[in-house]
Amino acid sequence: MPTEFPGKEGPYTLADKLIGSHLVDGQMRPGEEIGLRIDQTLTQDATGTLVMQELEALGLDRVRTELSAQYIDHNLLQTDEKNAQDHEFLLSACRRYGVWFSKPGNGVSHPTHMQRFGKPGVTMVGSDSHTPAGGALGMLAIGVGGLEVALAMAGRPLYIRMPEIWGVELTGELRQWCSAKDVILDMLRRHGVKGGVHRIIEYHGPGVATLSAMDRHVIANMGAELGATTSVFPADDAVRQFLRAEDREDDYTELLADEGARYDVAEQIDLSTLEPLIAKPTSPDNVVPVRDVAGEPVAQVVVGSSANPGLRDFAIVAAMVTGRQTDSAVSFDVNPSSREILEDLTKMGATFELIRAGARIHQSGCMGCIGMGQAPAVGRNSLRTMPRNFPGRSGTREDAVWLCSPETAAAAALTGRITDPRDLADELGMAYPELNLPAHASVNTAMLVAPLPESEAQQVELVKGPNISGLPDFDPIPDLIEAPVLLKVGDNISTDEISPAGRALPFRSNIPKLAEFTFTQIDETYPARAAENASGAGHVIVGGENYGQGSSREHAAITPRYLGLRVVIAKSFARIHWQNLANFGILALEFESPDDYDQIAQGDVLRIDGVRDALRAGTPLVAHDQTRRCDVALSHRLSQRQVMAVLAGGVIPLLAE
Amino acid sequence: MPTEFPGKEGPYTLADKLIGSHLVDGQMRPGEEIGLRIDQTLTQDATGTLVMQELEALGLDRVRTELSAQYIDHNLLQTDEKNAQDHEFLLSACRRYGVWFSKPGNGVSHPTHMQRFGKPGVTMVGSDSHTPAGGALGMLAIGVGGLEVALAMAGRPLYIRMPEIWGVELTGELRQWCSAKDVILDMLRRHGVKGGVHRIIEYHGPGVATLSAMDRHVIANMGAELGATTSVFPADDAVRQFLRAEDREDDYTELLADEGARYDVAEQIDLSTLEPLIAKPTSPDNVVPVRDVAGEPVAQVVVGSSANPGLRDFAIVAAMVTGRQTDSAVSFDVNPSSREILEDLTKMGATFELIRAGARIHQSGCMGCIGMGQAPAVGRNSLRTMPRNFPGRSGTREDAVWLCSPETAAAAALTGRITDPRDLADELGMAYPELNLPAHASVNTAMLVAPLPESEAQQVELVKGPNISGLPDFDPIPDLIEAPVLLKVGDNISTDEISPAGRALPFRSNIPKLAEFTFTQIDETYPARAAENASGAGHVIVGGENYGQGSSREHAAITPRYLGLRVVIAKSFARIHWQNLANFGILALEFESPDDYDQIAQGDVLRIDGVRDALRAGTPLVAHDQTRRCDVALSHRLSQRQVMAVLAGGVIPLLAE
Repeated sequence: MPTEFPGKEGPYTLADKLIGSHLVDGQMRPGEEIGLRIDQTLTQDATGTLVMQELEALGLDRVRTELSAQYIDHNLLQTDEKNAQDHEFLLSACRRYGVWFSKPGNGVSHPTHMQRFGKPGVTMVGSDSHTPAGGALGMLAIGVGGLEVALAMAGRPLYIRMPEIWGVELTGELRQWCSAKDVILDMLRRHGVKGGVHRIIEYHGPGVATLSAMDRHVIANMGAELGATTSVFPADDAVRQFLRAEDREDDYTELLADEGARYDVAEQIDLSTLEPLIAKPTSPDNVVPVRDVAGEPVAQVVVGSSANPGLRDFAIVAAMVTGRQTDSAVSFDVNPSSREILEDLTKMGATFELIRAGARIHQSGCMGCIGMGQAPAVGRNSLRTMPRNFPGRSGTREDAVWLCSPETAAAAALTGRITDPRDLADELGMAYPELNLPAHASVNTAMLVAPLPESEAQQVELVKGPNISGLPDFDPIPDLIEAPVLLKVGDNISTDEISPAGRALPFRSNIPKLAEFTFTQIDETYPARAAENASGAGHVIVGGENYGQGSSREHAAITPRYLGLRVVIAKSFARIHWQNLANFGILALEFESPDDYDQIAQGDVLRIDGVRDALRAGTPLVAHDQTRRCDVALSHRLSQRQVMAVLAGGVIPLLAE
Repeated sequence: MPTEFPGKEGPYTLADKLIGSHLVDGQMRPGEEIGLRIDQTLTQDATGTLVMQELEALGLDRVRTELSAQYIDHNLLQTDEKNAQDHEFLLSACRRYGVWFSKPGNGVSHPTHMQRFGKPGVTMVGSDSHTPAGGALGMLAIGVGGLEVALAMAGRPLYIRMPEIWGVELTGELRQWCSAKDVILDMLRRHGVKGGVHRIIEYHGPGVATLSAMDRHVIANMGAELGATTSVFPADDAVRQFLRAEDREDDYTELLADEGARYDVAEQIDLSTLEPLIAKPTSPDNVVPVRDVAGEPVAQVVVGSSANPGLRDFAIVAAMVTGRQTDSAVSFDVNPSSREILEDLTKMGATFELIRAGARIHQSGCMGCIGMGQAPAVGRNSLRTMPRNFPGRSGTREDAVWLCSPETAAAAALTGRITDPRDLADELGMAYPELNLPAHASVNTAMLVAPLPESEAQQVELVKGPNISGLPDFDPIPDLIEAPVLLKVGDNISTDEISPAGRALPFRSNIPKLAEFTFTQIDETYPARAAENASGAGHVIVGGENYGQGSSREHAAITPRYLGLRVVIAKSFARIHWQNLANFGILALEFESPDDYDQIAQGDVLRIDGVRDALRAGTPLVAHDQTRRCDVALSHRLSQRQVMAVLAGGVIPLLAE
């Protein structure tokens, strides 16, 4: 690894080293655009079908990364032929382009990738917002839109703005009944869902050594909920132990921040001061101590997902329910995160105890985390170890999803009410369970299909079922935009609200059909109103702060664009969605004065003239509200590269030029 | 038990004894209507939501059966709030009316009922066509429409036509690699899906003792596929063993046919002559030896469902895949039939071996058997141990589902092709596995909620989510029907084709919404055409032989009635659907001359005059085809009781009168 990096002086943080060792363009000064060489990519099925179609549109012959892996973990319910046909398409694309294929049932991408392919010091992009989980192993793992992944697979650098490095020093040790989830819930309580925007969170300090690699996964995974670019942990002995348990000790390299590394922002958490925390509906940062809400009735408890995917996370639940029955009013759903974990759990007897205590054991996959199954009844409290509880994400329109640790989830499953697990000593006479976890994992690669040799790969035909629609053609942005504000929304609108998962997920490879679901969580009339208007100059959406937070789905850009969206004007944007908008030719503009948000109403007609010239020249833009006869000053933070994409109508037409 | 029964002389068959001991009306002469006292009822969630609404419409205070149980096994995917809200509604109704409630995850109704409540000598009706599985314990268990179940719950007798008793003498013993599924597939090969109509199949002879109670469940369950009223086995030592393993030996009574009992129809199967069999797409009677189709590529293998629900059925699969990997091209889905079985499987290590070999383990329930998940890709072969493979039932429109034994399913999972399991000795060096099954089951009643005491029950309010639509009002049948034939269909139309499961299943409690799916597997335009026509005189459907075979869903009568269906004219009807049509006021007529089927075309307008008088008087009916200017002579086989129901517009308005 080089010892000096452009634009930044040592001693270096770990994030600096990961960035600097992959830098191909730019200076490492916060806010400036940099280009990074990408070693690995991760795609899942809900975003991967588009990625593979983008590879085809780019005319790629074979991936140029060190390793690319495609996971089937989202669309597993298969209520009709669409899911199975998407799986066939993805398998054929993996065979064609030289990508690993993880079969349905093998597990959620993030823990599975960590088990099989993750290693210290490499860069990865993934078309899933929880890709940063890889930071648990000392990787630089970034969630991006599918097209960014496709470009990385094609060997092109990832362009991002150099983030600030936010050092979080961990000291002390978690007390009994607290676990990694409480750490990240504490971060969300402190900083909210925008607290990490344009930052990499780097954990360091003596407390790090008290956390296993899978504990770190929990924290790095949900760094996404802070809006962070990614999170990183050092590669230390815990990482070595993890890789050894996975038969991959050879992939270990020690990787630490330099002594005395300077962080752009610095913070400390004393782990020993944390107590069990819970995020109330309907935002991951709506965090309170469990004791503050104890006693609320609970109708469902779900353990699993990429946010608490480790063997320990299930084993502690099994230990807590052993010899007991979960409450008769509770649906107790166990969602194993990977085949390997389920194998281990079963071997150690924990699966048996879970079933005996009343668990519904589901296949390994993302399941209810993205509304693919186990949706709760309206208004009934569902406690989940999952990472997100945005409104409707569970599949239920007026849902009441709470996010918590496995310990807090198990306590509620037993009592039927929200319960601080520390109170189980009194309530049920329960001592904190001693876990005896195996030192070696049930490594099993039989559900991972390896890439074909290049000569064979070139013979493979893509198998496209009728649900694979192909990408729509997008035209360049016009110089004059005179269009109505079809929708005005508030702060923190998530991509779940823009392009829902759940029922809509099986249509992720079918843009015209998927478009019918766009924004329907917020306004059922939007798709029809947009379609009516699509033939003209299109339309504008107005948003508040942190517009487009949450998942990386580029569908949240493509489907409104398909319906005629030209411009989003917001107070601020979430990183991945902002990039996706540019990638598909939608102009993301910010209010010069946030108060102007109040000037514009839904239904107003805006006129923005000289768009192309202003973008090219980098000069300010003004929207004239023809309805209210006022002007609103607008700016953008697009790089020159992104401006080119927007002018061309998106990255694919730009590359075609 | 009485020693002489009205209308029939001894020595008696077992079926005679079960009928005779519950006879409250009529003479036991084949073809005559008899009334039977019903001891137990079984409902599941896909039909139970209507049953509970019918109890409410009937004004019932508390069930009058010895035992009624409601299972949640069909709608478990929960992609939105509807399923969970239906579960809430059903729980509240169980509490209100004094019904056992089996929580989601506790298992498929048939094996679970057999484990917990089934006992020799009792009668049971169930709103599920596979209810006859109870015959494995020497019960008289009959699948009927939901309204019949509601009436039984209200203490009213079940009226059926006295069936013929079909004695099937089993001799010999099954050879290695053959199992109970091959017995019932052989029956289907011999007799087809109409072979059992108006018959009870009674198994007897020395071969019976070689079959365990759960083996008998397999055979009795799929007697439904022969169209039989039910199937019965003697209650002998195998039944005692089963009940002992379930901690219920006290429920055992020996129950055998009299020595020298005379059967209306007699047949023999030498078990030792059977070989592995398989039903090809898309009918359960499309049976051939596995060797005849060996080598066909397989994309999916599913083990489970009520047709092969026993511990042995999973354990043999686990034993076969132990130490091996299933084929990389196969999705290997395991669908545990009950929590108890999954507990036993897990305790004995079989779950571990299944996972290790690549299984996707699903929650306990009906799953893909009724298109709730794991739908295969179009045209890709899916081998299933399930009972039915009607077109589209899997959830995939042009599906290719094959039905086979667990042994044949496991062989295909290992090789990726249809394989006679006997050939695994050569192909994989596999010896026939020795199974070491526990003598005692993991009895666990914690997911069964007991009925409330009467005084508490009366306080319970029904919890009705927005998906509980209530029953529509139906008007009496008019005297003059002048209406178009909106649909003409062929032979063996199943209720899956009339009112599909899969995507439509979550709407089973919402008739207006469910109606939009009616007949769409056959003709997508039917619901719209029917709705257009509904305000007038309604419409007629013309069918071939065995119209309405398959499941018991009364939705297949209610939704077309809701859309204006008044008359079905067919060559013949399947028993349950025929009864459902009468229950909801639809007139089921048969061609006097089957050739007249060819006289009528879709779109013709028929005029049937004097309907009410002819029904009352029992005189013939004639349809005048106004389009073709010809007359078609029609008859019906309705009892006086059924005629009254049709005249009134259905049983509920009749009872209200």
